[in-house]
Amino acid sequence: MNNNVVVQNIERVNPEIIQGLAECGVATVHEAQGRRGLLADYMRPIYSDAAVAGSALTISGAAGDNWMMHVAIEQAREGDILVFAPTSPSNFGFFGDLLATSAQARGVVGLVIEGGVRDVRDLKKMNFPVWSKHVFSQGTIKETLGSVNVPMVCADELINPGDVIVADDDGVCVVRRDEAEQVLTLARERMAREEEKRVRLANGELGLDIYNMRGRLAEKGLKYV
Amino acid sequence: MNNNVVVQNIERVNPEIIQGLAECGVATVHEAQGRRGLLADYMRPIYSDAAVAGSALTISGAAGDNWMMHVAIEQAREGDILVFAPTSPSNFGFFGDLLATSAQARGVVGLVIEGGVRDVRDLKKMNFPVWSKHVFSQGTIKETLGSVNVPMVCADELINPGDVIVADDDGVCVVRRDEAEQVLTLARERMAREEEKRVRLANGELGLDIYNMRGRLAEKGLKYV
Amino acid sequence: MNNNVVVQNIERVNPEIIQGLAECGVATVHEAQGRRGLLADYMRPIYSDAAVAGSALTISGAAGDNWMMHVAIEQAREGDILVFAPTSPSNFGFFGDLLATSAQARGVVGLVIEGGVRDVRDLKKMNFPVWSKHVFSQGTIKETLGSVNVPMVCADELINPGDVIVADDDGVCVVRRDEAEQVLTLARERMAREEEKRVRLANGELGLDIYNMRGRLAEKGLKYV
Amino acid sequence: MNNNVVVQNIERVNPEIIQGLAECGVATVHEAQGRRGLLADYMRPIYSDAAVAGSALTISGAAGDNWMMHVAIEQAREGDILVFAPTSPSNFGFFGDLLATSAQARGVVGLVIEGGVRDVRDLKKMNFPVWSKHVFSQGTIKETLGSVNVPMVCADELINPGDVIVADDDGVCVVRRDEAEQVLTLARERMAREEEKRVRLANGELGLDIYNMRGRLAEKGLKYV
Amino acid sequence: MNNNVVVQNIERVNPEIIQGLAECGVATVHEAQGRRGLLADYMRPIYSDAAVAGSALTISGAAGDNWMMHVAIEQAREGDILVFAPTSPSNFGFFGDLLATSAQARGVVGLVIEGGVRDVRDLKKMNFPVWSKHVFSQGTIKETLGSVNVPMVCADELINPGDVIVADDDGVCVVRRDEAEQVLTLARERMAREEEKRVRLANGELGLDIYNMRGRLAEKGLKYV
Amino acid sequence: MNNNVVVQNIERVNPEIIQGLAECGVATVHEAQGRRGLLADYMRPIYSDAAVAGSALTISGAAGDNWMMHVAIEQAREGDILVFAPTSPSNFGFFGDLLATSAQARGVVGLVIEGGVRDVRDLKKMNFPVWSKHVFSQGTIKETLGSVNVPMVCADELINPGDVIVADDDGVCVVRRDEAEQVLTLARERMAREEEKRVRLANGELGLDIYNMRGRLAEKGLKYV
Repeated sequence: MNNNVVVQNIERVNPEIIQGLAECGVATVHEAQGRRGLLADYMRPIYSDAAVAGSALTISGAAGDNWMMHVAIEQAREGDILVFAPTSPSNFGFFGDLLATSAQARGVVGLVIEGGVRDVRDLKKMNFPVWSKHVFSQGTIKETLGSVNVPMVCADELINPGDVIVADDDGVCVVRRDEAEQVLTLARERMAREEEKRVRLANGELGLDIYNMRGRLAEKGLKYV
Repeated sequence: MNNNVVVQNIERVNPEIIQGLAECGVATVHEAQGRRGLLADYMRPIYSDAAVAGSALTISGAAGDNWMMHVAIEQAREGDILVFAPTSPSNFGFFGDLLATSAQARGVVGLVIEGGVRDVRDLKKMNFPVWSKHVFSQGTIKETLGSVNVPMVCADELINPGDVIVADDDGVCVVRRDEAEQVLTLARERMAREEEKRVRLANGELGLDIYNMRGRLAEKGLKYV
Repeated sequence: MNNNVVVQNIERVNPEIIQGLAECGVATVHEAQGRRGLLADYMRPIYSDAAVAGSALTISGAAGDNWMMHVAIEQAREGDILVFAPTSPSNFGFFGDLLATSAQARGVVGLVIEGGVRDVRDLKKMNFPVWSKHVFSQGTIKETLGSVNVPMVCADELINPGDVIVADDDGVCVVRRDEAEQVLTLARERMAREEEKRVRLANGELGLDIYNMRGRLAEKGLKYV
Repeated sequence: MNNNVVVQNIERVNPEIIQGLAECGVATVHEAQGRRGLLADYMRPIYSDAAVAGSALTISGAAGDNWMMHVAIEQAREGDILVFAPTSPSNFGFFGDLLATSAQARGVVGLVIEGGVRDVRDLKKMNFPVWSKHVFSQGTIKETLGSVNVPMVCADELINPGDVIVADDDGVCVVRRDEAEQVLTLARERMAREEEKRVRLANGELGLDIYNMRGRLAEKGLKYV
Repeated sequence: MNNNVVVQNIERVNPEIIQGLAECGVATVHEAQGRRGLLADYMRPIYSDAAVAGSALTISGAAGDNWMMHVAIEQAREGDILVFAPTSPSNFGFFGDLLATSAQARGVVGLVIEGGVRDVRDLKKMNFPVWSKHVFSQGTIKETLGSVNVPMVCADELINPGDVIVADDDGVCVVRRDEAEQVLTLARERMAREEEKRVRLANGELGLDIYNMRGRLAEKGLKYV
Repeated sequence: MNNNVVVQNIERVNPEIIQGLAECGVATVHEAQGRRGLLADYMRPIYSDAAVAGSALTISGAAGDNWMMHVAIEQAREGDILVFAPTSPSNFGFFGDLLATSAQARGVVGLVIEGGVRDVRDLKKMNFPVWSKHVFSQGTIKETLGSVNVPMVCADELINPGDVIVADDDGVCVVRRDEAEQVLTLARERMAREEEKRVRLANGELGLDIYNMRGRLAEKGLKYV
């Protein structure tokens, strides 16, 4: 049973690819990889207009216990995103401005947490974005071990250490490490195609015509009255 | 069974009336029409400070299927609001920036959707307001027909095509088409009365005195200790 | 059965202490008093960046009935926060801009309500912060008596009249009246300690070292691989 | 505005048809009418193994107010099902054993309520089934008028007086009055077809073969490894 | 700050009164004491048809920690009901068959818990009823002190040690210790009045007539069409 | 990207071990394997008193699409439990009596589904237990491929094909295939220890004494008053 383990060396994706995925955004990346990878819709940003991507530094800890956060930050590299999931549901405030200060000093670009967070106003001032299930101040303890950089489930998705996390106002999406480059290529192609369509739609052309839908609608029996 | 129908010509309310209702806002309009018409409280704006009113262009589609959005946009007229309800609950991202571009090009002023929406940041930049139950990027399919401009239930309320939708930070309210003018008159009267009271309250007068409540409170047995 | 009572004279905490607690914020105050006092996490601000503290003016009323709000405002003193809980769950809009105008004229600095609120945009413009469970416009009636300034339960916590309410983007915390001074002292000490740690963490020192955690982690069996 | 109205004469469906629909059950009726008509999944039976159908006697009342229940019972005919929806969400106990006694004496076969119910054990003993959103004892008042036998929305569906309500352990389904006979025919055909398939499946034949799915699965690219 | 305290001697209500309240049931007791005392509607029995009353033995513990359960059982007297609330929300399985065995051996008649419970089938076999917010097996720890027999909030209600808890399929109601006798008298009077009405309603008389409602309905403007 | 794959040969655990785990039950197995493996608490049995264990036959399908159920049943072996998770949340009725007939004919002992189920009464009569997130009849389509017997996330837990699923009135627990034998040994030891304690507790001994807690409680500062 691989519990209570800290994996120190994990593979990460090339930073240019990660940056590219951040620019594509959650919805485009999700589409580009075959409509997979979205974390549950209750994962919401604590302030709007943030958009980042980073390498997942996974953290599994007990409900109401944030001890492994400290352990994890030592393992952080420039460009990482902390991803925390408690082993049982918990709305406690696992993370606040002090941990953010420490994480930011190590180059961490954000946090995704299936739990609670606190010091929201400070985090916003620090420009440290968080996507969480709860905002709640309840203090945590440091009693039970967990693991860092092992595969784990967070908000309906399996997250492996080193997977790319993309997050913006639409939520959070995970991209498998070994698929990231291909997904970026597909996402950029999609964006190019969409840009072209945007121009036509803005000029008043209809999706019905651009996507050639009228025939199939009629076939299926749509009636205009 | 009136399924899979697109009704092309619907009656709409005079634009000046609609604009007047927008200026009154959700709470006042709700009160003016006898405390009716509010959609469920889970219908929230994806960004704050938007306040619009428009003619309901109703769209009924299958869960996870946004095909009828495209069909509906062809039917849109200047000043319409799209109102979408899936036939079963679904948090999928039925609507994003491309559909918004197309809708905006046809004069649509917003969207009310008992489902999910994506591309939140783009919609905010475009100044295209949305009131939705979910924010989620999950991609939809185009397989199943639905209907456009038929009466339907959305977030606890019956919406008829051409009804007026009023939406702001307080949520969403529907006004029946044939009552809109009367409701506007009543809403404006209410606003005038409220303005007068606001001045008195701001000067420190009490509601207890303005509304003459002390007698009835005493009668019912309120005790001051 | 102490129902339908308005208690007119309650003890309040010294305004300087209250102001001090506001500056410490919810998370720090919660910690300083032994991790107690948080209201349920569904109590959210209707707009961000507000941070206040005040003396609890407690109001207990029937579901869907805001009559006691008017009664309560007469009892308000400079620096009070209205705290309202219905005797049964209700999402009705118990409070809006007119009541806020009246309350603000009496020196009230905000509202905490385990129910609904409306006129969100106006309240924001007035700089009248509200922490609520719901945003909803449904109009209330004035039929049933309740009580003002009696102990009551609001969002999982017992609130006594005169207790100090601290509220910000993290939520709401209650401090017992007779503990407020001591809690402020402890909170300020905590802030001082945290400030020192913040500097060290910002310089790249690790919590593992600052808090001397490595030995206990090893003892409990944490494995680095 | 058609509020505060009691419609005394409504059309009802032939009792044999209603009985037939009860025997088919919710899932089959839902399928037979084109996968329409299900009330929201939070409408659950207060005890298991009940299965009924009846003519909808619709009741719209204020949140926390059950006055119109009394008005409605006078309008009840043998074989009716009471269908109650408050105009705003409310978990109050609108209905209990006394109202059930009265309703049962008039031939009412059950209750569907988007609200709360109480006296669960008595209702079970009386064999009076209820599908509700809540079980809660909070007492209601009798202050505000509503309507009886007007179209209304209940748990996501429009219900017209005289529509047929089918309810069992799977939930609740509504059948339009003028479609009931046709739906029954289709439902019975479906049951016959299903019976035949049940025998084959019970004998170990696979749905893959019975429904001839293998070709289409291969075409779409399903890989066996 | 009265934390970490076990109060050993509490006042309890006479067992005959408690037994009488159990026979009246939750809905009747709630009504008899002025429609107060109901715990939140998410407090549900883990099996149906249980109906008990007992003296509240209150237990306040940390989220995910059931240590104080053991402490509390020593304080139990014949006829007590354990009432547990964690200081923060937690769905952990705080209680199972071993604790139930121990509690039952001391005369405890049931458990009310704003948290999780496990070993549901065993508890049912033992005839040990539980009203809980969750059913979940997650194991708890024994690390943090709490208090026994101090006033606390559980599921929206203040519970004092020695208050009477009444629980059945309708949920849970609390009766203040010093009001229990009077409430029983009122509850029995109510039951007698109801019995008389039940007979009349069963004979087909209408509530409209028995309660003399027709005049007031007409006055308020109810229209029959 | 390993989508749209059916893995035909998976390893399964010895049936005696599976049977042993079923007898231990969810809570004991969860404890025996170090308090891991519980699926989310919203996974509830559709009828009570069922208790089974089986080899996980995992099924991943699109929201509202049950095509892969048919594919999966062909892969079923005696003693399997179907485990279904949609790739996005969906309350549709993915499974009913016909699929249950087919599955039961192949030796399947139950279903765990993070979605909806229908034909509850028939499933109960067939003695085919289901643990689901929803009960809902909404009909599904057969349009989109998914996978069978690949690792997937269901209700917060990673499930691998061939893992052992244990389910009873307490919920659902997963045991890794290669740990099942060891977990059974530990679970049986735990049951033996518990049996011994049960006897002592039933005789009135206190957990405080059996578990030797008094010293540590005193050390931590528990006060008896």
